[in-house]
Amino acid sequence: MDKKLQGYIDKLNSLNFKEMYEGDFFLTWEKTDDEIEAVFTVADALRYMRENNISTKVFESGLGISLFRDNSTRTRFSFASACNLLGLEVQDLDEGKSQIAHGETVRETANMISFMADVIGIRDDMYIGKGNKYMHDVVDAVTQGHEAGVLEQKPTLVNLQCDIDHPTQCMADMLHIIHTFGGAENLKGKKIAMTWAYSPSYGKPLSVPQGVIGLMTRFGMEVVLAHPEGYEIMPEVEEVAKKNAEKSGGSFRKTNSMEDAFKDADIVYPKSWAPFAAMERRTDLYGRGDWDGINALEKELLAQNAQHKDWCCTEELMTSTKDGKALYLHCLPADINGVSCEDGEVEASVFDRYRDPLYKQASYKPYIIAAMILLAKQADPAATLEALAQKNTPRHMK
Amino acid sequence: MDKKLQGYIDKLNSLNFKEMYEGDFFLTWEKTDDEIEAVFTVADALRYMRENNISTKVFESGLGISLFRDNSTRTRFSFASACNLLGLEVQDLDEGKSQIAHGETVRETANMISFMADVIGIRDDMYIGKGNKYMHDVVDAVTQGHEAGVLEQKPTLVNLQCDIDHPTQCMADMLHIIHTFGGAENLKGKKIAMTWAYSPSYGKPLSVPQGVIGLMTRFGMEVVLAHPEGYEIMPEVEEVAKKNAEKSGGSFRKTNSMEDAFKDADIVYPKSWAPFAAMERRTDLYGRGDWDGINALEKELLAQNAQHKDWCCTEELMTSTKDGKALYLHCLPADINGVSCEDGEVEASVFDRYRDPLYKQASYKPYIIAAMILLAKQADPAATLEALAQKNTPRHMK
Amino acid sequence: MDKKLQGYIDKLNSLNFKEMYEGDFFLTWEKTDDEIEAVFTVADALRYMRENNISTKVFESGLGISLFRDNSTRTRFSFASACNLLGLEVQDLDEGKSQIAHGETVRETANMISFMADVIGIRDDMYIGKGNKYMHDVVDAVTQGHEAGVLEQKPTLVNLQCDIDHPTQCMADMLHIIHTFGGAENLKGKKIAMTWAYSPSYGKPLSVPQGVIGLMTRFGMEVVLAHPEGYEIMPEVEEVAKKNAEKSGGSFRKTNSMEDAFKDADIVYPKSWAPFAAMERRTDLYGRGDWDGINALEKELLAQNAQHKDWCCTEELMTSTKDGKALYLHCLPADINGVSCEDGEVEASVFDRYRDPLYKQASYKPYIIAAMILLAKQADPAATLEALAQKNTPRHMK
Repeated sequence: MDKKLQGYIDKLNSLNFKEMYEGDFFLTWEKTDDEIEAVFTVADALRYMRENNISTKVFESGLGISLFRDNSTRTRFSFASACNLLGLEVQDLDEGKSQIAHGETVRETANMISFMADVIGIRDDMYIGKGNKYMHDVVDAVTQGHEAGVLEQKPTLVNLQCDIDHPTQCMADMLHIIHTFGGAENLKGKKIAMTWAYSPSYGKPLSVPQGVIGLMTRFGMEVVLAHPEGYEIMPEVEEVAKKNAEKSGGSFRKTNSMEDAFKDADIVYPKSWAPFAAMERRTDLYGRGDWDGINALEKELLAQNAQHKDWCCTEELMTSTKDGKALYLHCLPADINGVSCEDGEVEASVFDRYRDPLYKQASYKPYIIAAMILLAKQADPAATLEALAQKNTPRHMK
Repeated sequence: MDKKLQGYIDKLNSLNFKEMYEGDFFLTWEKTDDEIEAVFTVADALRYMRENNISTKVFESGLGISLFRDNSTRTRFSFASACNLLGLEVQDLDEGKSQIAHGETVRETANMISFMADVIGIRDDMYIGKGNKYMHDVVDAVTQGHEAGVLEQKPTLVNLQCDIDHPTQCMADMLHIIHTFGGAENLKGKKIAMTWAYSPSYGKPLSVPQGVIGLMTRFGMEVVLAHPEGYEIMPEVEEVAKKNAEKSGGSFRKTNSMEDAFKDADIVYPKSWAPFAAMERRTDLYGRGDWDGINALEKELLAQNAQHKDWCCTEELMTSTKDGKALYLHCLPADINGVSCEDGEVEASVFDRYRDPLYKQASYKPYIIAAMILLAKQADPAATLEALAQKNTPRHMK
Repeated sequence: MDKKLQGYIDKLNSLNFKEMYEGDFFLTWEKTDDEIEAVFTVADALRYMRENNISTKVFESGLGISLFRDNSTRTRFSFASACNLLGLEVQDLDEGKSQIAHGETVRETANMISFMADVIGIRDDMYIGKGNKYMHDVVDAVTQGHEAGVLEQKPTLVNLQCDIDHPTQCMADMLHIIHTFGGAENLKGKKIAMTWAYSPSYGKPLSVPQGVIGLMTRFGMEVVLAHPEGYEIMPEVEEVAKKNAEKSGGSFRKTNSMEDAFKDADIVYPKSWAPFAAMERRTDLYGRGDWDGINALEKELLAQNAQHKDWCCTEELMTSTKDGKALYLHCLPADINGVSCEDGEVEASVFDRYRDPLYKQASYKPYIIAAMILLAKQADPAATLEALAQKNTPRHMK
């Protein structure tokens, strides 16, 4: 057995994640530290195996269902890659082509698509109070279906972004941080600035800032959330961050100053998002079909936005970070000054300097998703990895 | 060899279905009783093998082409599941993205998509006299292409719903009935009511009621077709039902009373459909591009429909069935009173009570489709199942 | 080892194509004669193996990404078939469903979709000076991504049609010619007429006539390009054709007479295309968003087109070819008189007589694409074919 791979397997064997078996992945803060570490470990192991041309197909057949209620490039391809890596074929549930509009309930659809589904991946991030709930409805439905003998297996749900969290994104971000700093043990006391930044668009989901403070506060870091007044996120998630920080020996605080957040930061994550309160209003207007109200709200938000064009990740701000060299993060695509817009989230020269690390950051997502699936579907994931390594089937017959 | 699996193989070896090899599946009444039984047997065997984690991949590579000319959730996913179960990758022919509109003939398209296709599944149910004919055109084209050396293999066609029959639906329905009643041998004399029911929409395909009476009359059952005057189905299919009933020792009759049909019924299948004569008119109007005529017809049909809101599967009606416990069937999605519409095909409490069996009913469809494919592609399906069982590759490496 | 297969392997071992490893396929004239012959040889070998039920899966997992910026049936299915034949799952990058419109650069998207991509196939043929450039941008991006450690592998690009060449089409056409004439060695001195033909539409890509003269001039043939005045193609490609002809001992000339081109021709390829100069103007108008200008140009082009309805492949013209039996080629779909239009590129009786050979011509495309992929991904393709033959896994377990 290869030493590095044996290391991952030994690590897994030291962790307790047995509750993940037959489970689902909704929010990172519903998982224990061991479970989070198991995801990172399996993700690293799968990447290592693929790099070394060892097939990690655990399914001979089976479907991975994806449901995207918002446009997506990287998450769509990450999910497809993860399923394919494990041997599952992706089938996209395109609601426009389905009969969902014709009086079909969530419970019914969930069962009808799951006869041979081992995984369901859902992105539903547009309306406050909706996406996460929808995912739970789907899981409840397929659990009942499995118990009633309708489904031979209960598919596992992977949250590909909801109104509350974006776990596959934030876990990929975190794994990138861990590798950049040479291990989770080196993160104690490091300062990370999750800050709002200006974008000419508005209404971007809150799931990234929420997911980041909900996860990064677990590693003993100094987590600072910065945004202009009026751009508050969900208070429940701030509570999660506070408790996490306390437990991990780190800290969590808020500020209305980007400068304050960037000062001596080891990691910066500047990114636009919509105000939570406005998103709640929008959800409400949408529920009532009040399109005039939605248009009015849009105008109001754009006007509010326009007052904060100075919230931009500039070279000057970057200079104020630790040794002027903070790790710059973004979930992509970013609004880059003079590239995709006039004024945006980041200056082009900053973005360009961090292009390779940004792409590397994104490259962890397929492995994070595959790890979440593996941990839900295998009774003994460490044994599975060992068996795959023994089998040693080349992914690509060279 | 597992005893249950051996039972399926022995059963297959007692049946004559050799004409199915290299064939296609258009209408159930074009198949012999042995052939129908072979489909059920292979479907049961495939399900049993999947439940017992035995891979049933007979293809290392190959495509399953789907062409849906109408929205679909369950049939789309059932077809995808069936192909995947056998090792075929689904490729959807989305006519909007193809060049079919640009002067390409059916004959040409059929060959162009079939270079590596082992299966073609088509849903084309909107226009009377069109769908089934289109499927035959496709089969003729690929047969010629295969004979001319263009195609290395002749793909098998699976009718995923045409204007005449919906064989994958009705075969799944029937297999559900067989298992519910403990075997086909227990169905003699059982009463099944295929009845029209009110829906606020109109113009639903006739293929389900037609397929049901065309298939269920082969099992010695008392088959009653009920609908308001004016909602006649294709007379040719009624002829099929009559002959089937005669041959099987069952009966087939029509009534204009839902009460009459439900009385002492063992099985009820209340479902909306459009009048055949109106569908013929619509096909004609459509052919002439007469959109005003189509709109006028739509109004007329909705008005006609509205006179029959009392055709609903109520608790009261259910009480009148055998022991008040008839098996309730629906192809889904159903129009449920107070759920998907004000007045519909069925009361919510009835639907809810039968939810699990309804989902189970639907769950047979992927296996029925896979069985149809296997019987068309394997020279000796019993030997194939035996070889798969011997090989015993886990579907999911646990 | 089967003799025929051994012949292909021996042939490969006699050719020098080592530069193709880890490379891409943009234009046929960027490849050496040995490389072109290697593609034909691998394509023949793969077809032979499939016909003899030998699996050619070299990938256990991996994605083949397709990006179609124009409608497509046969190329779409050919690419899907080729990927599937080698074990890759197709994922379509549907730009409408992606975030490309939201400020994402080509460089970014190319990396984001490629984490587990072994192949990228692109069709981008609408605008002069754009498609081929776009493909190079994608290749540059993934090459950088691979070097930066973002991508574990560099996906190979297959040009599925650009503004300059349509290599998978023309290579399939050529392989069809080679087999029809019993070998490339029999083509010296044969006359091939690549001629314009009238179509009621306008603006068809120039990539086919350009690709044909760029490739066919390499085999010692007499290549004649015929079109009405004003329908010139890219002058750079004419230069390529001239040099090729000189080197191969064949000839290349232009004429404004269809009769002249058809006279004693062994092969005819009559097909509509847009004038190069007009396409340049359209690209320019499009770039400036001048929709009025585009409409005016369209009218002008249709009027110009209408003057050349006599450019049709008639029975009379066919009679003037070598023994009246020239091989008729088309990339399909063709505009057929009285079938898809009143006046078109070819008379129905001519098209009908050549239907089987035309479909056969098209049937080489999946194998050409698969060969291009195999030659880019395998360090020693001959050894790969040998290993697959030894392994002898059935494609279809019969």
